[in-house]
Amino acid sequence: MRTIDWADGRIRIIDQTRLPAELRTVEITELDQLIEHIRSLAVRGAMALGVAAALGMALAATRATGDLDAELAAAADRLIGARPTAVNLGWGVRELLLARAAGAGPAQLVARALAIRDADIAVSRALSRRGADLLAGARTVLTHCNAGALAGVESGSALGVIGQLHADRPLELVYVCETRPLLQGSRLTAWELGRLGIPHRVIVDSAAAGLLVGGAADAVVVGADRIAANGDVANKVGTLGHALAARHAGIPFVVAAPEATVDPAAASGGDIPIEIRDEDEVLSWAGHRVAAPGSAGWNPAFDVTPAELVAAVVTEARTIRGRADRPVPLPDDLAQLTVTGPAPQAG
Amino acid sequence: MRTIDWADGRIRIIDQTRLPAELRTVEITELDQLIEHIRSLAVRGAMALGVAAALGMALAATRATGDLDAELAAAADRLIGARPTAVNLGWGVRELLLARAAGAGPAQLVARALAIRDADIAVSRALSRRGADLLAGARTVLTHCNAGALAGVESGSALGVIGQLHADRPLELVYVCETRPLLQGSRLTAWELGRLGIPHRVIVDSAAAGLLVGGAADAVVVGADRIAANGDVANKVGTLGHALAARHAGIPFVVAAPEATVDPAAASGGDIPIEIRDEDEVLSWAGHRVAAPGSAGWNPAFDVTPAELVAAVVTEARTIRGRADRPVPLPDDLAQLTVTGPAPQAG
Repeated sequence: MRTIDWADGRIRIIDQTRLPAELRTVEITELDQLIEHIRSLAVRGAMALGVAAALGMALAATRATGDLDAELAAAADRLIGARPTAVNLGWGVRELLLARAAGAGPAQLVARALAIRDADIAVSRALSRRGADLLAGARTVLTHCNAGALAGVESGSALGVIGQLHADRPLELVYVCETRPLLQGSRLTAWELGRLGIPHRVIVDSAAAGLLVGGAADAVVVGADRIAANGDVANKVGTLGHALAARHAGIPFVVAAPEATVDPAAASGGDIPIEIRDEDEVLSWAGHRVAAPGSAGWNPAFDVTPAELVAAVVTEARTIRGRADRPVPLPDDLAQLTVTGPAPQAG
Repeated sequence: MRTIDWADGRIRIIDQTRLPAELRTVEITELDQLIEHIRSLAVRGAMALGVAAALGMALAATRATGDLDAELAAAADRLIGARPTAVNLGWGVRELLLARAAGAGPAQLVARALAIRDADIAVSRALSRRGADLLAGARTVLTHCNAGALAGVESGSALGVIGQLHADRPLELVYVCETRPLLQGSRLTAWELGRLGIPHRVIVDSAAAGLLVGGAADAVVVGADRIAANGDVANKVGTLGHALAARHAGIPFVVAAPEATVDPAAASGGDIPIEIRDEDEVLSWAGHRVAAPGSAGWNPAFDVTPAELVAAVVTEARTIRGRADRPVPLPDDLAQLTVTGPAPQAG
């Protein structure tokens, strides 16, 4: 099962808005369709979005009827604008623009996009191994949103780590935060864990703090949508709350993400734009209003977890420490995984 | 509008599971019906449950056909068992048992229950005034679940404070956490704020941390289901996360609750039983499964916020300081509302 792929000159995606009830594949022949599916979260997740952007640029190149450079520039703008917080869109776009600048024509641009697709699989495997080594002592973990196979091509980031942990030594339990408003946790992550045979329980997002502070989990593992140069992490709304609870509970909060998620242009979390999505995602359910008539909503899709709350960021290439005074713990020694050092103060 | 009342020998309640779409009143003639409506949360909220228990005991007394004391004892057990975390149920039951022990017959027991109903209104007014004085400097506040008029008879606790703050000087904005899984925030609190003309925005529960840490609110105000002797607060699941975020943001976390919520028999939060509700509340929506097929849920209805995260508990009679080294701030001086002192460590 590939979440996103290329076949017969078309992009093929699993429509994740249909999961878990229905496994539906969509064939995409025009960039407009891809933009729409990115916006609706039919294709989503940091890694998958990087591949989607590359394949989208390749699709635009094969469909170009006028000036190729002008059409690629227009496609780049539209892809990046589809979800402003997702840095991987920009990364995939830039990779293809670089190939074009080096003289690639449409066929070579397709080949470059396919190489990016293949690299995604290798990246997931490498960071999953690194994360599982880091957290080898953990038997119960909590995760948020979906940073799994469905967020990549054939594997994922946070859920890749969890899958590797379980393969190394069976996990006792994974707490899956449902992840309001769009329920990527209960719909997608729970679906993936079920396929992997990993014991899990779905909880409302707000139950995480009580469980963590009560000692129910050994670690929190999440993905990231963008990581600033100082280590601040933008991820699905709710991530910051889990990081605060993990700190209070004295357990490690670990971020698993590909290097492409690190954005050197963002000095800190304050430089990362937070996407505000439609208030109807909060106020309605499956088209039916649930909130009080006339009430307005506010729907930030992400939050920023400051680096001082992050024990470690694991990528395919390295382990980035949250702060110099809080060393990354050794594998197989859960006691050393405890985050120590002075508690953070409000900035 | 009274949330719960007594008329013609019957208990009359607003069925809150129907709000905000429909304002439906239910007439209750048998204790069984009341127990069912307490379990389904048709009547809910700490204060309303105290009145419900008293009226339930009065109803049982007027319906008794055998030994009055035996029937009251059985009614007491069933009312207290309907929702084990809600200490106010036990309080209302005990008040009626005390009256019976003093010789009251059915008519006098009804009179006692009606006196409890009337006292609830006075209690709400007094604690709302006290809380509004404490938080006079706050212009934006965040609240969780519903501790409003719908949780009492004619007024509420946390929302009573918010209503009084707004009456004193118009609030800029109230952030209303939707409160999964049963959405008491988006359904009930937003409905009440709309009726009061108070500007508000509904958010997913997990957006609170990012908003609070980002400086969007001046204070957090919530109700309580039970308060231990040491000041630990059991309230709707998610409350602890807001308290942790408020601490990180350096803003006060205030609990508004009647004296009846304080349970001297619970030395600390660890002595408060946490109700675990049906996993279907997490896994399904309006009867339709949303989580992945085969996945299990875990649904704790409450969490415990340790006293050291609580700036103050306001009741109708007093202001209880969270900790001796964190004095209750003065009214009208928001700078002094900032919670100071050492950050809590995991216990």
